[in-house]
Amino acid sequence: MDEQVEVLGKAFVDHYYSLFDNDRRSLSSLYQPISMMTFEGQKFEGSAKISCKLNDLPFDQCKHLISTVDSQPSVFPGGIVVFVSGSLCLAGEEHSLRFSQMFHLVPTLEGSYFVQNDIFRLNYG
Amino acid sequence: MDEQVEVLGKAFVDHYYSLFDNDRRSLSSLYQPISMMTFEGQKFEGSAKISCKLNDLPFDQCKHLISTVDSQPSVFPGGIVVFVSGSLCLAGEEHSLRFSQMFHLVPTLEGSYFVQNDIFRLNYG
Repeated sequence: MDEQVEVLGKAFVDHYYSLFDNDRRSLSSLYQPISMMTFEGQKFEGSAKISCKLNDLPFDQCKHLISTVDSQPSVFPGGIVVFVSGSLCLAGEEHSLRFSQMFHLVPTLEGSYFVQNDIFRLNYG
Repeated sequence: MDEQVEVLGKAFVDHYYSLFDNDRRSLSSLYQPISMMTFEGQKFEGSAKISCKLNDLPFDQCKHLISTVDSQPSVFPGGIVVFVSGSLCLAGEEHSLRFSQMFHLVPTLEGSYFVQNDIFRLNYG
């Protein structure tokens, strides 16, 4: 069970950042109307608003490099909590930005997952 | 609702790190047999094992300084996900360590919360 959760968490993370870096608009498919995102302290509810925020971020090309992925089963049946640390490289910027992010993934009726909770923070200092 | 969740999240975080810094053994009361903790990639299940790990950490005196707390309602009824960033100062060490940590809090029958999921990572780099 635990091992399966780690595999699912890593697969989700690979998929998420691959979409983010290559086809950011399609991230909206991973959220639902009840999804919540807190991005650097700003809150967004629902796939439409979340997707707007992600598409409006003030950079075009970016690349996420993942350092760690930790996953655990959630108390919500079939749910997974995923905690990611890594760095974000922006096109034309010399230094990358360290970040941490957590996701609460909840199963969909179709047998995949959507992001119920998403909290993102840059790591300063 | 959202505001209440933020208040509850912050209150939990203050309580948690106050216990950690002043009476670490009593943290065990915040976990239950079904709780999970991943500490720097190492997994622990159940309040007994989690509590052992926390009490066995190779430092005695410490102080957590909190930088950010982000909270969201969980899809689990009454649950809250909390994401914390901050730094950890160890007695006798000049430099503090940056960390990020997430908690999934679940209501108890007695009207308080226990930690269902706990994931801790130091931020390097």
